Amino acid sequence: MKIAIIGFGTVGRGAYDILKDRKEILAQYTEPIEVSYIVVTERSKARLAEQFGDTVVTGADYDRVLDEVDLIAEATGDTESAFDYMKRALEKKIAVVTANKAAVSAHYRELVELAEKNDTPFLCEAAVGGGIPVLTPLRGLALQNEIRGVRGILNGTCNYLLNAMYDDGADYAEVLAQCQEMGYAEQDPTDDVEGFDTRRKLHILIEMAMGAIDGDAIPTRGIAEIDGDIVGYLKARNKKIKLVASATKTARGIEAVVEPLIVDADSALGVLPLAINQVQVKGHWVGDVAFTGPGAGKEPTGNAVVADIVTAATKSDLPLLRRESLPLAGVRGRYFVAYPLEGDIVDRIDDGYAITKEIERERLSELLPDTAFFARIEGDEWNR
Amino acid sequence: MKIAIIGFGTVGRGAYDILKDRKEILAQYTEPIEVSYIVVTERSKARLAEQFGDTVVTGADYDRVLDEVDLIAEATGDTESAFDYMKRALEKKIAVVTANKAAVSAHYRELVELAEKNDTPFLCEAAVGGGIPVLTPLRGLALQNEIRGVRGILNGTCNYLLNAMYDDGADYAEVLAQCQEMGYAEQDPTDDVEGFDTRRKLHILIEMAMGAIDGDAIPTRGIAEIDGDIVGYLKARNKKIKLVASATKTARGIEAVVEPLIVDADSALGVLPLAINQVQVKGHWVGDVAFTGPGAGKEPTGNAVVADIVTAATKSDLPLLRRESLPLAGVRGRYFVAYPLEGDIVDRIDDGYAITKEIERERLSELLPDTAFFARIEGDEWNR
Repeated sequence: MKIAIIGFGTVGRGAYDILKDRKEILAQYTEPIEVSYIVVTERSKARLAEQFGDTVVTGADYDRVLDEVDLIAEATGDTESAFDYMKRALEKKIAVVTANKAAVSAHYRELVELAEKNDTPFLCEAAVGGGIPVLTPLRGLALQNEIRGVRGILNGTCNYLLNAMYDDGADYAEVLAQCQEMGYAEQDPTDDVEGFDTRRKLHILIEMAMGAIDGDAIPTRGIAEIDGDIVGYLKARNKKIKLVASATKTARGIEAVVEPLIVDADSALGVLPLAINQVQVKGHWVGDVAFTGPGAGKEPTGNAVVADIVTAATKSDLPLLRRESLPLAGVRGRYFVAYPLEGDIVDRIDDGYAITKEIERERLSELLPDTAFFARIEGDEWNR
Repeated sequence: MKIAIIGFGTVGRGAYDILKDRKEILAQYTEPIEVSYIVVTERSKARLAEQFGDTVVTGADYDRVLDEVDLIAEATGDTESAFDYMKRALEKKIAVVTANKAAVSAHYRELVELAEKNDTPFLCEAAVGGGIPVLTPLRGLALQNEIRGVRGILNGTCNYLLNAMYDDGADYAEVLAQCQEMGYAEQDPTDDVEGFDTRRKLHILIEMAMGAIDGDAIPTRGIAEIDGDIVGYLKARNKKIKLVASATKTARGIEAVVEPLIVDADSALGVLPLAINQVQVKGHWVGDVAFTGPGAGKEPTGNAVVADIVTAATKSDLPLLRRESLPLAGVRGRYFVAYPLEGDIVDRIDDGYAITKEIERERLSELLPDTAFFARIEGDEWNR
């Protein structure tokens, strides 16, 4: 099987290294997998040509690449050009593997429909959990179960930041600066800390497991407003803040949200260390299952890309659940609010913080300024 | 696809119910799956015939069954008759799905070799994790990674018992009696509490992920010697006892053992509630990943059987890693010992309990009477 890797940053390079390392072993089980092309920008081409010679080409050669390969592994960070690469491949019945959560979230339905129309594998394991093998088992679970909920910690940077604040008692800005220095956070961390990266992954999970929704409409709040005092107040009560994505299927539609959640320090989400991620799935037959692992990183994410390549090479992809369109429904819950809230909705004030009665998230959000930190308190919504 | 379910206890019935519930949905993705036969004992036949009519047959009709079906789902509890059923099916190129950990552990190599020789699926997801989807992702991980370790909590009854002792401060016999009353433990709990059930599952995980070993030779100790005082002593130090199966690949062979392990109360294994199980896998590319879920029960285990049936029906089984034979190597560690141990190997005595220096498990075992409780203290062996 001839493949092209598109984009040769962390993930593309990781996949290349793993394919090289496992070449002989994989060849015992699949037809030999050969990286025929590495498709990069003009600037990267100059840098990579010395090592990889004619294997390195640019997007200008993409038509020729598609004439020769059986699969593309798309590992760029871009949205629209990546979509174009994938679309053109699927239209020519060339298998597509991608690690690109932005492109998959923005164009999930078109990509899946193109893949189905052309009877060609479209696999995106690396786009959700990084290294966690979750989408492949989820495909199976969704066939056998009505999936009533998916939720989890889907962003390694946020989990790392929140753990560091909890452990060290440090303030957000301080911990963020440390994380940027150590490479755990980007120089522009917006996408991670504001929850947009998490939202894209939640959107893909919902599309695969439950139904088609408007991903951009999922209410999303990040962790940038958290301060050390809040973390300390909660720690003294054996509670932790985690940035949690959740979606629950109800009669009104899908209750989906990305927001800080207050959990018991010794709960499954509470104990996730470092940058470790977890996806929890609730099926009506299987019950509650969870998948845990590194949510990002060159080698784990490269591993997920290679997993999809092997799946395509061995034609072992499970069918994908057909998706009915479902409306988004508002989330309700009790909230912790770091703002002098007053009135009916307040259950009590403790140490200057407000704990609300059960309230619609949207209504609460309207009452608060953008800079106020608030977090849902985990109730029994996941277990009822 | 015509299938026969062999054995119609909890698991067989669970699979039947799920296939019925998901019949229309599955038919959109696979050829229709039809339960043509239910193979049971003469006594059960009389009981089931009223509901299922001619579908119910006994083992005497098995040759006729094999002439007509494409897959058998083996869900008996027996070892040798189940092996015979599976062998005869594979020899006729009929796909085999099984939930039978005893038969799979005892005959893993013969079954896999027969399946490979006849180019026929052999799938046993339900035999290890009950409801946890672990073997399917593990097949993929083992192709792309050298698997350096597998470990976990693989027995729901033991996890339930140990959690109840920790939460209630009750003694072993008292909690066991409660569990038996509630159906969480068998009337003869030996297989669970002595670790034999756990050993079979560990053996299957090792065979799939690492190499071929003599499963019966894995050193195995259970939890029957634990008393409430020990649990209380550890709880005061924020520690919990869990029955943990572990296997680590080293230069000397596979260090495999089933024994009580002392872990931090707020570690991933420590927080597993009720009868929830977890399998942890360490791959040289992916890093550490974990799979969590209900380890037993009619519906979760039935779900795993149906998952394998769907995998066979859609021909989506990944190749199985070929297994080199590996020797078992002894485990070393620091141990907590509830016995007046003396001499060089004792690091300190605390509250009447001995904490050893690092010592070979086998050597320690020889120094202690059978009734003495001892547990390894989790060190860095999993993380180095």
